[in-house]
Amino acid sequence: MSIAVLQGSTRDGGNTEQLTKVLLEGVPCTEIVLREKRILPIHDQRHMEGGFDPVEDDYDEVIRQVLEHDIIIFASPVYWYGISGLLKNFMDRWSQSLRDSRYNFKELMARKTAYAVIVGGDDPRIKALPLIQQLKYSFEFVGLPFAGYVIGKASKPGDIIQDTRAIREAETLNAELRARVRGE
Amino acid sequence: MSIAVLQGSTRDGGNTEQLTKVLLEGVPCTEIVLREKRILPIHDQRHMEGGFDPVEDDYDEVIRQVLEHDIIIFASPVYWYGISGLLKNFMDRWSQSLRDSRYNFKELMARKTAYAVIVGGDDPRIKALPLIQQLKYSFEFVGLPFAGYVIGKASKPGDIIQDTRAIREAETLNAELRARVRGE
Amino acid sequence: MSIAVLQGSTRDGGNTEQLTKVLLEGVPCTEIVLREKRILPIHDQRHMEGGFDPVEDDYDEVIRQVLEHDIIIFASPVYWYGISGLLKNFMDRWSQSLRDSRYNFKELMARKTAYAVIVGGDDPRIKALPLIQQLKYSFEFVGLPFAGYVIGKASKPGDIIQDTRAIREAETLNAELRARVRGE
Amino acid sequence: MSIAVLQGSTRDGGNTEQLTKVLLEGVPCTEIVLREKRILPIHDQRHMEGGFDPVEDDYDEVIRQVLEHDIIIFASPVYWYGISGLLKNFMDRWSQSLRDSRYNFKELMARKTAYAVIVGGDDPRIKALPLIQQLKYSFEFVGLPFAGYVIGKASKPGDIIQDTRAIREAETLNAELRARVRGE
Repeated sequence: MSIAVLQGSTRDGGNTEQLTKVLLEGVPCTEIVLREKRILPIHDQRHMEGGFDPVEDDYDEVIRQVLEHDIIIFASPVYWYGISGLLKNFMDRWSQSLRDSRYNFKELMARKTAYAVIVGGDDPRIKALPLIQQLKYSFEFVGLPFAGYVIGKASKPGDIIQDTRAIREAETLNAELRARVRGE
Repeated sequence: MSIAVLQGSTRDGGNTEQLTKVLLEGVPCTEIVLREKRILPIHDQRHMEGGFDPVEDDYDEVIRQVLEHDIIIFASPVYWYGISGLLKNFMDRWSQSLRDSRYNFKELMARKTAYAVIVGGDDPRIKALPLIQQLKYSFEFVGLPFAGYVIGKASKPGDIIQDTRAIREAETLNAELRARVRGE
Repeated sequence: MSIAVLQGSTRDGGNTEQLTKVLLEGVPCTEIVLREKRILPIHDQRHMEGGFDPVEDDYDEVIRQVLEHDIIIFASPVYWYGISGLLKNFMDRWSQSLRDSRYNFKELMARKTAYAVIVGGDDPRIKALPLIQQLKYSFEFVGLPFAGYVIGKASKPGDIIQDTRAIREAETLNAELRARVRGE
Repeated sequence: MSIAVLQGSTRDGGNTEQLTKVLLEGVPCTEIVLREKRILPIHDQRHMEGGFDPVEDDYDEVIRQVLEHDIIIFASPVYWYGISGLLKNFMDRWSQSLRDSRYNFKELMARKTAYAVIVGGDDPRIKALPLIQQLKYSFEFVGLPFAGYVIGKASKPGDIIQDTRAIREAETLNAELRARVRGE
């Protein structure tokens, strides 16, 4: 059982990263920091005769890394009540992977398990619920089980520590992840 | 009453653009095609001492155009159950506008009216509802009234014409927009 | 193709009934007015040894009528952002039908098609979306396809006539229903 | 700080009641068991000249009890992706209280704080989210702050004990409630 984090935060050491750390304390994982990658918005060529043109950016490398792991942690701040554009652009490109003949994207994704770490400033336990539903529909589309999520509330740097509920929920998921990694 | 379209489709002449055309038939408007602009993902510097660094892209020009109009049409395909990453990146940058001292972003946005045109392939009248709720929360945050939306179903190019319900709903909104433009 | 209306309005001739009339103009249908029936809240005995006790009310008669039709129209005002308690109590009792040995409830429901007519006073095109999602999940549970819905806005008696969008959407669905009844 | 529980479960000692117990361990509270009360569906007479007729049931007694407390716990199983019809009927009657001249319902409710305990069998952390949004809109309508919720997963009697996440979340809220009762 290996774990990859898709870190969609745009800020170094921000609240989303801090809560992700609580979730993963003591658990070996590969962190993929999307803001350090160059990932272009999708250009929808699903219906072009030649299919998608190859894109010169880091998407290919990142999705290959994702596909090598068993558990994927989607970490994102709540930006305008959705995941960050950074993570959204990455997920939009899945449409390209679905048509990539080098692997069967759906089949590979369906063998993995997803978790989400979401941090927002404006009543996120209510207003991030559409975001959670969007992730659910997306995961469902590729057959990826959505095993759990934690929603934290924070605005200013470091705020997340005050959100006792989120910290405890992250700790509960941490115990689950440790058990999974140990193969229980 | 002047109208601007924020076109979030990544494809030339796709279903989202076709449905937007029905909505705006005979109505003068400024079309802003986001895929022809360069708009970078936000780099969240809300909490940096110096605030946001200036960004070398087209965001500034586009948001200024938006602010000059009274009615804003948000047009987007449903990508992974959300708006396109293109439109998402644009909206994420509103966080920067909220801190821009050259204008009062909230005050200006609150005087406008928003509509949305959304086209998806996978049961969009159900599965695009989180997307609609997300837009609602975003508009609410800046005080922008959300006057209406139409959700169309289409996958392959030209499919949207078969979606009689969406076409008729777009026609109904077209009549409303014509009345607004005439100042009724 | 025969049609049954499950009328969940608690008021005679109210806005929900008026919009339902537009939907069904010229279409033969059986109207089941729930407020004229006595339907008790479910007493959950799913896990009792003897299963559910028989209940002395009109549920059995109503569900049998429903099961005799091909298309079911769920009509309800928005009460506190959900369907009326009247209709909710009726649907809660489906848990009893799922365990009724006299018929295979899921199998029978899965052959039908559902539509919904929903009328609310407080921004229903946004705030009734959770209600629509709840109906969707419920229909999905019994395999019942959800073919369409119309959401109207009205508070005072007769208001619904002013909601041009809802009236036109009901007319569009009316054309669909007529075609279905003619067997097209 | 006094606490009332509105228990919407229809089963004695079921999973919803068990999770509610964890939430309230060691905290003094008044339990209102709705299945032991007779509460009729609302008959919408908002627009009748004489207003609402008096109803011969227990609603009046129950709402008075609710109004005497500072914190209200809404406890309900997930029935068909909504609250139980029992609790729905009770909340529908709030429309009557809004027109009751003996008290100012909104003003009184706005001084209280709400929590929710929700237990469902079918992927409730996703499929009960519309239910949570519905409660949120309802509480918002009367100005009642929604301070937190816990969603548990359970079907057969006693299952809830296996849902470690829900138990821990209920314990976290228990600590909050204890602090509130102590006046912190």
